[in-house]
Amino acid sequence: MDNSVKKMKTSLDCIPCFVRQALEASKMATEDKAKQEKALKRVLLELEKTSLEGKIPPDIARKVHRIIRKVTGNSDPYKKLKDEYNRKALRMYPNLKQKVAGSEDRLLTATKLAIAGNIIDFGPGSKFDLEKTIGEVLVQDFAINHFNRFRNALQKSEKIVYLGDNTGEIVFDRILLEELKSKEITFVVKGGPIINDATVEDAKFAGIDKITQIRTISNGEPGTGPKRNSKEFIDLLKSADVVISKGQGNYEALSEVNANIFFLLKVKCPMIARDIGVKIGGIVVKQSR
Amino acid sequence: MDNSVKKMKTSLDCIPCFVRQALEASKMATEDKAKQEKALKRVLLELEKTSLEGKIPPDIARKVHRIIRKVTGNSDPYKKLKDEYNRKALRMYPNLKQKVAGSEDRLLTATKLAIAGNIIDFGPGSKFDLEKTIGEVLVQDFAINHFNRFRNALQKSEKIVYLGDNTGEIVFDRILLEELKSKEITFVVKGGPIINDATVEDAKFAGIDKITQIRTISNGEPGTGPKRNSKEFIDLLKSADVVISKGQGNYEALSEVNANIFFLLKVKCPMIARDIGVKIGGIVVKQSR
Repeated sequence: MDNSVKKMKTSLDCIPCFVRQALEASKMATEDKAKQEKALKRVLLELEKTSLEGKIPPDIARKVHRIIRKVTGNSDPYKKLKDEYNRKALRMYPNLKQKVAGSEDRLLTATKLAIAGNIIDFGPGSKFDLEKTIGEVLVQDFAINHFNRFRNALQKSEKIVYLGDNTGEIVFDRILLEELKSKEITFVVKGGPIINDATVEDAKFAGIDKITQIRTISNGEPGTGPKRNSKEFIDLLKSADVVISKGQGNYEALSEVNANIFFLLKVKCPMIARDIGVKIGGIVVKQSR
Repeated sequence: MDNSVKKMKTSLDCIPCFVRQALEASKMATEDKAKQEKALKRVLLELEKTSLEGKIPPDIARKVHRIIRKVTGNSDPYKKLKDEYNRKALRMYPNLKQKVAGSEDRLLTATKLAIAGNIIDFGPGSKFDLEKTIGEVLVQDFAINHFNRFRNALQKSEKIVYLGDNTGEIVFDRILLEELKSKEITFVVKGGPIINDATVEDAKFAGIDKITQIRTISNGEPGTGPKRNSKEFIDLLKSADVVISKGQGNYEALSEVNANIFFLLKVKCPMIARDIGVKIGGIVVKQSR
């Protein structure tokens, strides 16, 4: 399998997954079955009209979830789940700190915990067990292991941009952030709700605003920040000595960008698995160049 | 949960499942990615247009698979899989006969084997292990157990209509058919290909044409037989002393029909599970009245 960095394409296999996501989001957004059906059907029509050519999966996900929010009138369908996992992860925080403190290699443990937290993802649609995942990841080998390069790059870095992914997960990111010594760290979240992605509110809840500055990228709605593929945002990434990129969505969007990005993720989707050459469940620290 | 007989409705939850089925069927039908995409998108449009009101899932499945056949130009996308499971089941036949011969209760064992064979279903999209399922079902309790009524009804019956379901599975049906003593038995298959449902060709391959007469119902194409909800077909069911109905699709279509139907099935779909009040994996012998 070719592990070179290239842009993720949207596959036909993504279509049933978007439809499932749309159904799940609709049901969380409203109890009104007529609205659920209207939202789901609007998504079917959008997917029928949309050319997959040149689009990455997050481009289409933004459209899908924007439709759900609009048709159901619920601006944040995953709110309850998001709050639940934020609280759950924050309760785990003292124990996670102990795991780092008691480990032989603090940075390695913190990195693995940040990757374990990436299981809290309501995009792929498979169920997960957070506690079990933490235990597994701590003793699991990296399927792609650029960890030594990551450690070396961090030691020399003055400016870091850290791209967060999901709620709850960002408490695990805080664990890793607290191990970083760089002068300037920017933590990036979504400027508005999409699936269970972390927002500014979540970053504050996790206490991250006290240790880094926060910036936003767009959730698909106007005024929520620059798009992830905008010049403004790519310039930010290029200006950093190291970019830490969490999760599948950031990998799909940024695998082609010419910046010093380390992708930290747990593989949960068959299309990403194929693209990155790692089996479902694999953990990855992959440098972009 | 209410176990009374009522017509299965198509739920919004069926939509992602139809889309997944359409993708799988398209990929089996053709290697041409443009045709796969065209077929899948035509299905999205059809699902968007279709009112779920008053429709049972098989009504929509017929439309979906007709589109796939038409757009890809492949009249039988599951042909290879179907042949594989027909051959596999036929190789198992001598061993299955031994299980019946060596059992304390031949009819019970044959009934359980017929239900175990119902796992060979490429509609629901979950993977299955045929050998493992046979072992499990033989020692599994019925989740709905009208087996004694079934045995009594069979003893008195002169005329039986047996509604087959899938390829491969029909070899298991042959095992049960060979235990029946009634004078007149009619075995019903689809008049043309849909998913991995058995056709006349498959019934002949399994040797069933030598022990019963064969009739067909429509696969959604003209000229393939009466529709399952037609007066002609319902009259056939009513004329029988006992109807043996295999699988989920027949249950969805006929759970409301006023005939002496025994539904034999393994529950594989969450919507059926909810309707019939049995967990996924459960085995059922359920009388309609």
